[in-house]
Amino acid sequence: MSDSPGAALRDLRERKPLIHQITNYVVMNETANATLAIGALPVMAHAVEEVEEMASAAGALVLNIGTLSRPWIEAMVLAGKAAGGPVVLDPVGVGATTFRTETARRILDEVDVAIVRGNAAEVAALAGLEAEIRGVEAIGASETGAEIARTAAQRLGVVAAVTGRVDHVSDGTHTTAVANGDPLLATITGSGCISTALTGCFAAVRPPLEAATIALGALGVAAEDAAREAEGPGTFHARLYDALYTLRPEALDERTNISDA
Amino acid sequence: MSDSPGAALRDLRERKPLIHQITNYVVMNETANATLAIGALPVMAHAVEEVEEMASAAGALVLNIGTLSRPWIEAMVLAGKAAGGPVVLDPVGVGATTFRTETARRILDEVDVAIVRGNAAEVAALAGLEAEIRGVEAIGASETGAEIARTAAQRLGVVAAVTGRVDHVSDGTHTTAVANGDPLLATITGSGCISTALTGCFAAVRPPLEAATIALGALGVAAEDAAREAEGPGTFHARLYDALYTLRPEALDERTNISDA
Amino acid sequence: MSDSPGAALRDLRERKPLIHQITNYVVMNETANATLAIGALPVMAHAVEEVEEMASAAGALVLNIGTLSRPWIEAMVLAGKAAGGPVVLDPVGVGATTFRTETARRILDEVDVAIVRGNAAEVAALAGLEAEIRGVEAIGASETGAEIARTAAQRLGVVAAVTGRVDHVSDGTHTTAVANGDPLLATITGSGCISTALTGCFAAVRPPLEAATIALGALGVAAEDAAREAEGPGTFHARLYDALYTLRPEALDERTNISDA
Repeated sequence: MSDSPGAALRDLRERKPLIHQITNYVVMNETANATLAIGALPVMAHAVEEVEEMASAAGALVLNIGTLSRPWIEAMVLAGKAAGGPVVLDPVGVGATTFRTETARRILDEVDVAIVRGNAAEVAALAGLEAEIRGVEAIGASETGAEIARTAAQRLGVVAAVTGRVDHVSDGTHTTAVANGDPLLATITGSGCISTALTGCFAAVRPPLEAATIALGALGVAAEDAAREAEGPGTFHARLYDALYTLRPEALDERTNISDA
Repeated sequence: MSDSPGAALRDLRERKPLIHQITNYVVMNETANATLAIGALPVMAHAVEEVEEMASAAGALVLNIGTLSRPWIEAMVLAGKAAGGPVVLDPVGVGATTFRTETARRILDEVDVAIVRGNAAEVAALAGLEAEIRGVEAIGASETGAEIARTAAQRLGVVAAVTGRVDHVSDGTHTTAVANGDPLLATITGSGCISTALTGCFAAVRPPLEAATIALGALGVAAEDAAREAEGPGTFHARLYDALYTLRPEALDERTNISDA
Repeated sequence: MSDSPGAALRDLRERKPLIHQITNYVVMNETANATLAIGALPVMAHAVEEVEEMASAAGALVLNIGTLSRPWIEAMVLAGKAAGGPVVLDPVGVGATTFRTETARRILDEVDVAIVRGNAAEVAALAGLEAEIRGVEAIGASETGAEIARTAAQRLGVVAAVTGRVDHVSDGTHTTAVANGDPLLATITGSGCISTALTGCFAAVRPPLEAATIALGALGVAAEDAAREAEGPGTFHARLYDALYTLRPEALDERTNISDA
């Protein structure tokens, strides 16, 4: 990593990039609030009539296929082609239906995607690695996450971020591991989508491999803070925005547990 | 009831059924989080291209007409016909517009609905009982809730769950009353939709009459816990997910106030 | 002002008007919860098949263009023409894309809008004042907010509410300033949309100039209360609904800082 997570956070807050998000209905409020809390500016727009204008003006574009429909897919492709900054793709539920798999592949074909962020099953499905990851134990294993990230990066020509107990980010050559976070993240909907939105925020100020690594570190450290006084998923969720907002660059430098994988 | 609420909750958490929800924009995040908190897995999908595949793989399907439009109605009907598990319908606002009334009736006609969950006015409108329930006092009365549930169950051929201060669930022959909950439930949007989503969760592991009764008991007990330290609707809302998540099967058995009605 | 904010709040809670909202996906849950917390009844409906029936039955109609698409624009225009009460427009992001600017202007042309609520940049763009407000300092200045509100009111034939550190509301002749609130409002998405929804609530029980002024005062006082024990945007957000719900009419009279501008 060429510079510190804290320096990236400082840059982000100074430059306050506009992050255009075409995302699913379930998490729009959550990803917008996480974007604001970390220090960037969210904008949601999905009409084919305006996505190109919006995407070209934004510092990064986040595409998330969690609640698809035809008009939204067209908007994602149009926005992706017009994007003025890096494009981050969250292939929510890819592999669960043919429609999602085809849509994610179409976006990868037609749009210059910089970063794909998903869980092990999603990224593996996208990279054609399903056969290799059968069995829940296998998916949970740390080495598997690194291997899925590395292979997906090579096959798809992107930086691949695979989140799990330990997160892995790879450009196909270099792979990082991020060991932060809290099990409560898995108890709220949208924590994966939030990690993708934050990746979009940092992608506006850092190259893809660093951006995804730092974003996952920042979310992990914030989750550790939020979990400290939480009494369950609801209070954890509220405190997660508090923690992202009050996250100090120095604390991020000290506490992110990032290593080569 | 053939077994205890606590045993049902234990089963639910062990089996973690996938609950496919085609629901309104206002509450998607809330019902997904409630589904996760109780121990099941939510998935939202509304595209006609994928709902059949998703619904057939899910343990239950929840249809909620709170923010309708033509493509969503088609998706609900397609998903309902393809559903691999029981279908739960929430007829939000039925009776308020002709469009909602016609849509709810169409779903009941074309889909094999197992459970309808609504408030007294909604279920009465659906069962053609409007005339009988004129007057707010009448709707509030406990006997009326039981009567509406029983008549709706008989006329619509479903299990009908009517929520209010006391909830009533009927299959037309047997009727249960659930006297749990807190007035703060009425101060947040989506508490009805959450009760429907939880009904879907339990319907994946129990027959309809028991599933609806236990779901309303679980939400009621959780609401009592959440209200204890809440200072208003916002902190109550956050704590409601905490309470669903930390709800112990033993506590559910001890504290649900379920009787025959 | 012909009567006190507290009296308006009392009226609102007694009459519990139905507030029909056609708003953006990001904030639907938030504006519905704020509407409930202040004491009114929210209803969301956007299908062209039902919006006229719903809008004609409602005490006020709120139109918000934050996540536009063609079918929603048609619904907004249809609902606006059929509205039984005052129409409040929130021109989210107007000026950011041609599509939003054209849509906001079309709504103003075809619908009898009573109140426009936006930030300085949005209201200025709508009134054709962009040139005058270049420069962030200028937008922040209190005099500028009053001037934008006054000019927009005159040019657009509406009551214009411009929110910022100090809010300004004008009918073109009389202009009020509201100096309540907390900087944490700017850290959550949808606080502007919430102010518009609350304006709709009060517009159902008071004339436009008073309604907008009192709504902004009520939100400001509630934000001050919520901020007191908040530890960041997430806990502030939860406590904001608590504060709206527990807001006493007497406290509103004592604490709103409303003056002529």
